[in-house]
Amino acid sequence: MLTVTEALARLMAAPKPALPSEEVALSAALGRVLAQDRHAVMDVPPAANSAMDGYAFCFDDVISGSQAGARGKPLLISQRIAAGHSPKPLQKGTAARIFTGAEIPAGADTVAMQEDCDANAEQIRIRELPERGSNVRPRGQDVAVGQCLLQTGQRLRAQDLGLLAAQGLVKVQVYRRLKVALLSTGDELVEPGQPLGPGQIYNSNRYTMMGLLQGWGFAVFDLGIAPDQPERIRSLLIQAADQADVIISSGGVSVGEEDHVKSIVEQLGSLDLWRIAIKPGKPFASGTVAGKPFLGLPGNPVSVFVTLLIIARPFLLACQGMNTGPSAVSKVKALFDKAGSNREDYLRVRQTQAGVELFASQSSGVLTSASMSDGLVRQPIGEDIRHGDTVDFISYSSLS
Amino acid sequence: MLTVTEALARLMAAPKPALPSEEVALSAALGRVLAQDRHAVMDVPPAANSAMDGYAFCFDDVISGSQAGARGKPLLISQRIAAGHSPKPLQKGTAARIFTGAEIPAGADTVAMQEDCDANAEQIRIRELPERGSNVRPRGQDVAVGQCLLQTGQRLRAQDLGLLAAQGLVKVQVYRRLKVALLSTGDELVEPGQPLGPGQIYNSNRYTMMGLLQGWGFAVFDLGIAPDQPERIRSLLIQAADQADVIISSGGVSVGEEDHVKSIVEQLGSLDLWRIAIKPGKPFASGTVAGKPFLGLPGNPVSVFVTLLIIARPFLLACQGMNTGPSAVSKVKALFDKAGSNREDYLRVRQTQAGVELFASQSSGVLTSASMSDGLVRQPIGEDIRHGDTVDFISYSSLS
Repeated sequence: MLTVTEALARLMAAPKPALPSEEVALSAALGRVLAQDRHAVMDVPPAANSAMDGYAFCFDDVISGSQAGARGKPLLISQRIAAGHSPKPLQKGTAARIFTGAEIPAGADTVAMQEDCDANAEQIRIRELPERGSNVRPRGQDVAVGQCLLQTGQRLRAQDLGLLAAQGLVKVQVYRRLKVALLSTGDELVEPGQPLGPGQIYNSNRYTMMGLLQGWGFAVFDLGIAPDQPERIRSLLIQAADQADVIISSGGVSVGEEDHVKSIVEQLGSLDLWRIAIKPGKPFASGTVAGKPFLGLPGNPVSVFVTLLIIARPFLLACQGMNTGPSAVSKVKALFDKAGSNREDYLRVRQTQAGVELFASQSSGVLTSASMSDGLVRQPIGEDIRHGDTVDFISYSSLS
Repeated sequence: MLTVTEALARLMAAPKPALPSEEVALSAALGRVLAQDRHAVMDVPPAANSAMDGYAFCFDDVISGSQAGARGKPLLISQRIAAGHSPKPLQKGTAARIFTGAEIPAGADTVAMQEDCDANAEQIRIRELPERGSNVRPRGQDVAVGQCLLQTGQRLRAQDLGLLAAQGLVKVQVYRRLKVALLSTGDELVEPGQPLGPGQIYNSNRYTMMGLLQGWGFAVFDLGIAPDQPERIRSLLIQAADQADVIISSGGVSVGEEDHVKSIVEQLGSLDLWRIAIKPGKPFASGTVAGKPFLGLPGNPVSVFVTLLIIARPFLLACQGMNTGPSAVSKVKALFDKAGSNREDYLRVRQTQAGVELFASQSSGVLTSASMSDGLVRQPIGEDIRHGDTVDFISYSSLS
């Protein structure tokens, strides 16, 4: 058996599609992956501005002259600077009425908050002299022109869009969405909405897989349930390889006398059957169809869910051009006992204030364990977990 | 000043819109919020099935007769059951060839793995007798008919869609998407793509806010930058209250001599100005416009980001009909020192293997601190953080 680490390393070493990039509007770029480094084209803020409503003045003007009583020296108000308006240079020995966000006039370096001043229409007296430079946000405080803001391979979050907008940008170059073709195999499967015959079950994997893949920002092509005719499967797979960047199947590629998918993938490309020391999971197929990566996931609902999250996801995100690190693991307290096994176990757990609780049934067929849980506890091979132990937790939201 | 807890409690107590529900296809339901409890309409699996490729038999048939050597007793193969096909009742004293996922025939209760049997075309001999019931997934193992699967107010994740699909469902009743109208205020603001004049800055808040709101599944109406004419603002706000469920503004509602938005909101409804003991943040307005909730966020880029995540988000998700608990807080090690203040501080930090690192500038104007970080460390009022301390961490991905 391959360890999870070994399987991941092998999969990550497989050839990946070269995705083209495309220009999209910033307003449509949420969740997309940057296809270029973005450097700042301007300073942010572009000019020094006031952090407060108050009065801008030159610090040296106020402290010059007689040291004693300097703070009480009145200053004429020589201009009024509202946010968004262009100031005139400050006349020496005067103050400018200024509002939050308004540009500091040339010649001023400090802003006194209005609460600290006695003012009438013509002049102010600063009661509490602030330190030099107070309440001024200097030019370039946030961003300096030329600075690298975002790198190729970053997935754009809301705040990243804000950062690009602050540069005045309205478009951004991102990788085209990864196209993933999905095939469900298993003669027992029936699509929801159809009548269920004896011996049949509804195809839940399609929905679980589509949901995860769509959540990761991919364009999903559903090929449906593999039909019983080899020629139909063959033409479906050829069509999938033509239209999609990656092909994923769930169910049965690795086992069974009746499996047409396996032999057709082998004819059209190659297929390696792996046994991964992961639970749920274990059988996993990696190959190619007409040069496109092919991933064969197991058929049990929770095995599909866990192997898609843990094994396939890093590879798929890399295919999308994303720079990914290891999964975000946090440390939590186990509120259960669980004996270790010869596979790395991904236990479905629910988070509580006190720690994480184990879902009662950890069977690979029990999809309620995935739905009624918040994430996975990773149990290393051969290690028992005892109530109170600190364990590795991977929340589903961290895998989004 | 209100504490964050007090502000949240006040906001959560404010009237919320009564959202209608709508029926959507399961394939379009990812991220939507359930408007009804869903109970199981059938057992899953609907019949007992085999977890393995092997031979189904009746345990008592095999152990009956002479105790010694019982394991070696040959069994005739009386039928072959492929997945998806309907079995006949098992003839007493025989075995059925069976494949993973295939229905267990009446009269059988146990499956021997094929690896543990010697078989030819007509009969098998079980070398390793499994325990009674082995390798059989009983009917209803995952879901029992009538069981509550998902509750009103749950946001549908991939695995939840799978769970509904396993019931044969193709449609689901969800709340209509919350409609949020966005208004940016500040005379210094210019939309990206436009030329920037003296004293002006680009409006980044709109993109940060739209990204967060869209990520939470809302429909966002952008009203743009508040114009300088009170009558235009008035008609925009009336229109927003007519079309949207909630109105959010960023910038300046709480301060400034020049603020038309504040006085118009007061004319059209009500406005409370709060000072929240949060950093960045503090000024926050809560009110109504023509009966619709109105939230006035601060204007600084990071204040908008943090108050939208920490103060507004729980209220907005509740408006969407979602059951929300407290933010998912994990415990991490601080790799920095930071003195406490008289406000609850939400520090932008980057996660590393060793702990979390503080972004150099924590100024509310420095949006790079939000973009170049993975989440927020919550620093309680008046508590210092020292290098090595365990602190509360809220990852951005947990707030998605």
